[in-house]
Amino acid sequence: MSLKHKVLNQCENAREASIRLSSIGNDVKNVVLYELAEDIHMNKNKILKANELDVKQNKNKISKVLLERLMVDDKKIKEMIAMVKSVAKLEDPVGKILEKTELDKGLILRKVSVPIGVIACIFESRPEVVVQISALAIKSGNAVLLKGGKEAINTNKVLVDIIRKSIKDNKGMPVDGVQLLETREAVREVLKMDDFIDLIIPRGSNKFVKYIQENTKIAVLGHSEGVCHVYVDDEANLAKALAICFDAKCQYAAVCNAMETLLVHKSIAKVFLPRLAKEYAKKNVELRGDSGTRNILKGIKKATEKDWKTEYTDLILSIKIVNGTDDAIAHINKYGSGHTDAIVTENEADAMKFINMIDSSSVMWNCSTRFSDGFRYGLGAEVGISTNKIHARGPVGLEGLVIYKYILTGDGHTVAEYSGKKGKKFKHKRLL
Amino acid sequence: MSLKHKVLNQCENAREASIRLSSIGNDVKNVVLYELAEDIHMNKNKILKANELDVKQNKNKISKVLLERLMVDDKKIKEMIAMVKSVAKLEDPVGKILEKTELDKGLILRKVSVPIGVIACIFESRPEVVVQISALAIKSGNAVLLKGGKEAINTNKVLVDIIRKSIKDNKGMPVDGVQLLETREAVREVLKMDDFIDLIIPRGSNKFVKYIQENTKIAVLGHSEGVCHVYVDDEANLAKALAICFDAKCQYAAVCNAMETLLVHKSIAKVFLPRLAKEYAKKNVELRGDSGTRNILKGIKKATEKDWKTEYTDLILSIKIVNGTDDAIAHINKYGSGHTDAIVTENEADAMKFINMIDSSSVMWNCSTRFSDGFRYGLGAEVGISTNKIHARGPVGLEGLVIYKYILTGDGHTVAEYSGKKGKKFKHKRLL
Repeated sequence: MSLKHKVLNQCENAREASIRLSSIGNDVKNVVLYELAEDIHMNKNKILKANELDVKQNKNKISKVLLERLMVDDKKIKEMIAMVKSVAKLEDPVGKILEKTELDKGLILRKVSVPIGVIACIFESRPEVVVQISALAIKSGNAVLLKGGKEAINTNKVLVDIIRKSIKDNKGMPVDGVQLLETREAVREVLKMDDFIDLIIPRGSNKFVKYIQENTKIAVLGHSEGVCHVYVDDEANLAKALAICFDAKCQYAAVCNAMETLLVHKSIAKVFLPRLAKEYAKKNVELRGDSGTRNILKGIKKATEKDWKTEYTDLILSIKIVNGTDDAIAHINKYGSGHTDAIVTENEADAMKFINMIDSSSVMWNCSTRFSDGFRYGLGAEVGISTNKIHARGPVGLEGLVIYKYILTGDGHTVAEYSGKKGKKFKHKRLL
Repeated sequence: MSLKHKVLNQCENAREASIRLSSIGNDVKNVVLYELAEDIHMNKNKILKANELDVKQNKNKISKVLLERLMVDDKKIKEMIAMVKSVAKLEDPVGKILEKTELDKGLILRKVSVPIGVIACIFESRPEVVVQISALAIKSGNAVLLKGGKEAINTNKVLVDIIRKSIKDNKGMPVDGVQLLETREAVREVLKMDDFIDLIIPRGSNKFVKYIQENTKIAVLGHSEGVCHVYVDDEANLAKALAICFDAKCQYAAVCNAMETLLVHKSIAKVFLPRLAKEYAKKNVELRGDSGTRNILKGIKKATEKDWKTEYTDLILSIKIVNGTDDAIAHINKYGSGHTDAIVTENEADAMKFINMIDSSSVMWNCSTRFSDGFRYGLGAEVGISTNKIHARGPVGLEGLVIYKYILTGDGHTVAEYSGKKGKKFKHKRLL
C-alpha cells in the first residue's frame, strides 16, 4: 500500500471513529481513562525499555536539552498516570446544553456542545504528549492522529499500543480514535486531508507552526511567538515592579510567556532601572536599551528595531523608556505578538486603559507574565497556548476541543407556515 | 500611491481603528446605529439615484436574478433602517465576563469577551449587505473592510459614505472602523494581509468561498455547499413527512438549507413515495431515484453517484431507499456537507440516534431543514451560515464576531512563589 493510501486509510478510519466517539457517554470515557492509567503502570518496564532504545539511538545525534525531553523515567511515568486520572476527573465538555430557545409552540431549538471530530496533533520529542493529547481526545470525544518526533518513535509506538488496548477493552469505543502517524512524509499527506481532518494542533517552534499554517487548508490551532512586555508606570509600586520584572525575565527564560521587552515610564527610569539592573546582574541577564536607557545604564548594548520584535527565549532583555501608558500601549500593539503583556501601576484608570487597549490573549495587572499558562489558570490539562483570534485564544483546555451543533425538534413544522404577510410569528423565547 | 500601498494603508488604519473600537461602550455604539438609521432615511434619494445608475449600467450585462438583487427601492431602504435599529437593540456582545477564577488570594483571573479585531467581508451584488455587516461590526466593536460586487459600486460608495459620516459625528468612534475596498485587485492584496486582518467572511457561491480559502492564510468563516437530507423513517407520521418533504424542497429551492436528497425507509416507500410524487408534480419537481425508487416511481431519471453529492439549488430531488436509520446516517455522513439534515419519525430512540450521529451543524427532528437560518433561530442579524467546525458553526450571529481575552490582576504576584516543593498552592476557586 502506498503511503498516500495508508494515510488516507487512517484518516477514513479516524473519521468513522469520530462519529461513534461523539455519542459515547462520560462514564465509558472515564472507564477507559482509568484503565489507561492502570495499563501505563502495568507496562512501565516496556515503556522504559523502548525509551532506552530511543535514547541510545539518539544520544550522539541530538542536543542535551532535546535528550532530556526525550527521556522517560519513573517520575515521568508517575506524572503521566496522574495526568490521565486528572483528565478523567474533569467535567465532560460534550453534551452541554449551551442555549435553549422556544421558536414557537412545539418547536424547540437547542445548541449543544459536541466534539470537533478529527484532530491531528503534530509535536516534537516529548513522548508524554502522546498520553496527554490522547487523554484529552478521549475525554472530549475526538478522534486523533498523532505524530511525534522521529527520535521518540519506539516510545511513542509502545504508548499508542497501550492506549489503543485500553480503548479496545471497552465496548463501543472505536479503537481508531487514537492512531499514530509514523513518518514525516505522512504529515505531508495529512496536511492535504481537509475532507477528513477538522483541526491541526502543531506544538513546536514558531518556524514549525508557520510551516504547517502555510501548507494546509485545514484550520490550525497554533501559537506564534511570545514577544511579551512589562510596562512599569510612573505610579508603580517599585518593590512590586522589581519582583515582577525579575520573575517575568528570570523565573524561566526559555518559554513563550517570559518577558522580552521592558517599557519604563520616563519619570521613574532613573530610580528604577539601576536597581533592576543590579538584580538582573545576579542572573547575568544581557540588557539592551534605547538611547534614554543607555544614558542611565552606561555601557549596555543598543537595542535596534529588530530587538523590539525579537523573542529571545534567553536571558536577554530589551528596554525602552516611554512617555506614559498611551506610548506603552502603542509600542506593544505595534511590536508585540498578542501573547501576554503586563502593566505595573497603582493607578486604576491607567490599568483599565492598558487592559482594554492591549490586543493580547492575556493582559496582566501587577503580576508576572509567567502566570499565562493552562495549569496556572486552572484549566486542568492544556492543549496548547493559542495566539489565534478565533475559536480559542490564550491557554486552551478541553473547551478548545469542542464546538456545538444546533438541534431543532418540531411536530411537523414547516417554514411555509411562517412565511408571507399572514404567516405565523416566531416566539423566540429563550428557555436557557 | 500604488494599489498595494493603498490597501496596506487601509489595513493599517483598520487595525488602529479596531484598537480604539474595542473599548467603546454600548451607549456610544447604539447612538451611532440610531444616527445611521436616521441618516439612511435622510439620504434616501441619494441612495436611490446611485442605485439607478448601477442598474442602468448593468441592465444588459447581468442576469435578471442578479439585477433584482442589485436593485434598491423604498421597501429595501425601510428594511435596512429596521435592520440597523434591530442590531442596536441586541445585547452588547463585548465586555461580558465569561469566567472568573480566584487563582490565589488577590490573584483574580477574568475571561472577558472582546471584538476579534479587523474583519474583511467580501460579498456579491446585494448592497444592503454593506449596511448589515457595518451595523454588526459597529455593535461588536470590530473594524471592517467591505468589498461588494463591482456592479453595485455606486450604491455601495454612497452607503459607506453615509455610514462613515454617522460614525464621524460621534466622539471617540474611529471613522476607519468601516472602509470600502473598491476593486477585485484590492481583494487579492487583502488576502495577503495576515498581519492586519483577523478574519475573512466571504459571502457568495461555493466556488468563490473555496477560492478565498485556498488563497489566504487568514482564518475564513465561510460556508461550503448545503447538501441537505430528509430521512423518512418507517415510524414516521406520513402526514408530517409529506408536509416536511414538500416544504424542505419547494418552499424556496434556491437556498442552501433546501433538501437535495430524500432518504426513505424501505417498508414505507411504496405507500409514501407515490403520494409525495403527486405533491411534487404540482411544482414540477424533477425526481431522480435509485433502482428501488424507480421500481415505485416509474419513468423517473436514474440518480447517479454524482447526484448524491450535488447541491441542485433548484427544483430537482434525488431519492434513495434505505434499510433504516443506521443506513440513513451512513449515507448522510458520507455524502452530506454537514449543513442541515432532518429525520421524520415518532420513534424517540431512532431520533436520538440520528441527532447524535449526524455530523452536521443543524439536525432537525420532525421539522423542515428550511428552519436552519439566523433569523428563524432568533439570533437577530446573521453574519452568515458557517460549515466550519471551529469557532462558529451553523447560522452565526453577533457571537461569531467576538472572542475573549484573559485578564489577570494581582498585587505583585510572581510565579517563583508558586514553584518548587515548598511553593504556594493555587486555589483555583471558580467565582463565576
